[in-house]
Amino acid sequence: MITSTRNSRIAEVRRLARQRERRATGRTTIDGPFLLAEAFAAGVSVREVFALPDDSDTAAASETAGVPLTEVSGDVLRKLASSVNPRGPVAVIDIPAAPEVTATDAILLWEVGDPGNAGTVIRSAAAFGFQVLAGPGTVDLWSPKVLRSGVGGHFRTSVVEGCDDIADLDRVGLVPLAMTTRGIPIGKVDLSDPVPVAFVLGNEARGLPPALSGRVTSVTLPMPGGTESLNAGVAASIAMYLRMSRRS
Amino acid sequence: MITSTRNSRIAEVRRLARQRERRATGRTTIDGPFLLAEAFAAGVSVREVFALPDDSDTAAASETAGVPLTEVSGDVLRKLASSVNPRGPVAVIDIPAAPEVTATDAILLWEVGDPGNAGTVIRSAAAFGFQVLAGPGTVDLWSPKVLRSGVGGHFRTSVVEGCDDIADLDRVGLVPLAMTTRGIPIGKVDLSDPVPVAFVLGNEARGLPPALSGRVTSVTLPMPGGTESLNAGVAASIAMYLRMSRRS
Repeated sequence: MITSTRNSRIAEVRRLARQRERRATGRTTIDGPFLLAEAFAAGVSVREVFALPDDSDTAAASETAGVPLTEVSGDVLRKLASSVNPRGPVAVIDIPAAPEVTATDAILLWEVGDPGNAGTVIRSAAAFGFQVLAGPGTVDLWSPKVLRSGVGGHFRTSVVEGCDDIADLDRVGLVPLAMTTRGIPIGKVDLSDPVPVAFVLGNEARGLPPALSGRVTSVTLPMPGGTESLNAGVAASIAMYLRMSRRS
Repeated sequence: MITSTRNSRIAEVRRLARQRERRATGRTTIDGPFLLAEAFAAGVSVREVFALPDDSDTAAASETAGVPLTEVSGDVLRKLASSVNPRGPVAVIDIPAAPEVTATDAILLWEVGDPGNAGTVIRSAAAFGFQVLAGPGTVDLWSPKVLRSGVGGHFRTSVVEGCDDIADLDRVGLVPLAMTTRGIPIGKVDLSDPVPVAFVLGNEARGLPPALSGRVTSVTLPMPGGTESLNAGVAASIAMYLRMSRRS
């Protein structure tokens, strides 16, 4: 059992908290029994698992999957986890190879900065059959916090990175629909059209750059309550739900 | 300027982080310039404001509103705020008097434990014209964290507490619709009916108690992606959006 937070293997895993280290190694960490079970079920490459000594469920799941498990103390687990009070386990996984954008409905995150919002979008995208595209300035979608709020959605849909040019959407046959507060009411958009769409969600505070939203059709969720905004993850999820419920 | 985190006035405000203290005093705290502006705009009783000495915007807003402002150091502000890196200000407000349940569309939170989810629901409810009802076991809707993720929704809709009996809904003419994973697909429910509805949202992990969901109509958001769940705030927001867009 590892009890020292300065153990060299623990230090190596902790470095994965940094995006640069995740990119260099192609690995990230996931927290908790639910995400670990989802990773196993999805056939994700799980490199190693760290768990408390009394965590017999994790021990059994890791043995079944043939993945090495290392017992760690509560102090060590807290250092490894992205949550404040981890129950464990923490696992190191290979970030799945980034797929290409395909001609299926998509949500493009453009300068979305909040890990919780990004994860919520990924969770909903998986539920409603959307691929997720990461545009410029968006939080690293494979960070432990985004994985946590994605609740397994990462492993059930495509997460495509480096979508920095809106023109790339046209090239694969996706119709971009910018989500703004001053577009066409979404109820007036024909969401039953078989041509796949890409909703484009902007930054939580600034929205989309005018240079982008001015070039493509903008859609808006009407808000009779007079508020100017919805949570970004909520707005994207409503748009995806509406599209999902109208496509056949 | 107050620079000591042990100052007695600071200690008094910090006690409002506890629900019991909020209930005893009828006060809570709000973080940040946006919520303070919303509180002023809504005519909420703002008792006092704490801000950094260089925060001239807050000083001007407080003076216009006739509310006493106390300058504090960054250390003191961090102790007062519910966020990790507050830009300030932090203000003490009177919790608005709890209104009665009325015969208008509602969302009832039943054992909803996560402050972020509860706040997201309040934000969406305000946007879509729903009152918010707090059922048993639900996080204190006037906690600073819920206020923060509510982004001002608290001040733009009714937040009704103590809705511990589902039968009370019938009494005011609200039709309860339990949100579960095994109910009627929401697309098959006539959401254009003029009789007001109360969506009932359960705990993030456990859902609604069977004794409750078994007594009322259950509705479900279809998820072709095969996931078992959506974020609770997202699910409630989609249901409210659908109802809003179909009522006239």
